[in-house]
Amino acid sequence: MKLIEDGLELLGEEECWSLLATGEVGRVGITVGALPAIFPVTYWLFGDAIFFRTSPGSKLAAATSGAIVAFEVDDYQLDDRSGWSVLAIGRADLVHDMVMSLAVLDAGRPPLADGRRTSIVRIIPTFVSGRRIVHDHEAGYL
Amino acid sequence: MKLIEDGLELLGEEECWSLLATGEVGRVGITVGALPAIFPVTYWLFGDAIFFRTSPGSKLAAATSGAIVAFEVDDYQLDDRSGWSVLAIGRADLVHDMVMSLAVLDAGRPPLADGRRTSIVRIIPTFVSGRRIVHDHEAGYL
Repeated sequence: MKLIEDGLELLGEEECWSLLATGEVGRVGITVGALPAIFPVTYWLFGDAIFFRTSPGSKLAAATSGAIVAFEVDDYQLDDRSGWSVLAIGRADLVHDMVMSLAVLDAGRPPLADGRRTSIVRIIPTFVSGRRIVHDHEAGYL
Repeated sequence: MKLIEDGLELLGEEECWSLLATGEVGRVGITVGALPAIFPVTYWLFGDAIFFRTSPGSKLAAATSGAIVAFEVDDYQLDDRSGWSVLAIGRADLVHDMVMSLAVLDAGRPPLADGRRTSIVRIIPTFVSGRRIVHDHEAGYL
């Protein structure tokens, strides 16, 4: 039984995590100086958390230190109007534990951009939701 | 003279608008029930504003009505580790003026998903910034 709302299938949590695992670039939604902002990051999963690297002392490092953040990944194909998105919300923290840092880095991937992104940010999602585009002809029971 | 920070070239406002004009799917950063959220939307530019459609009464419609929101567009190529992102921040509003709605729709594009997305949201950016990945060999003076 699919849950469909406004042309979007609502995905279960397990499928959301599977899709999160397929992505490489995601977007972090934070607040900087009382204003909303979105920054793309190269991310990976490790355990039940999302990890990315950033520069020590950067706005992104500051804004994700102890804050509740949004994290979004999506993939769209314009040619056949298909695609999905996953949204995770949770507390972000800078990883200070050296042993954990090494384990996390070992499982991770380097950022696309050069630069000294030597701080590791962890997001522990407490809420995960996802949506996939379905067109009427795919959902015969609509 | 390029401004480069952590492997990212900081783009001028004119180039940011040019890149915004090339995209079709962007992401809106909003606050829903005191929590941050990011939702992908099919968008277009008209005049000096960003427009997208959403369902009347939806969370997205409510959260973008009179709020300051973030809007992000990016494009990355993993194979050669290149890409760019643009972030716009500004006040969002539901468009109520029928004449304006028709003009805006005429310049616009339909959402990728089916569904009754008959409300138009306008974001008037007051702040636009952009970044492009540059690797050391492209920036000989680094």
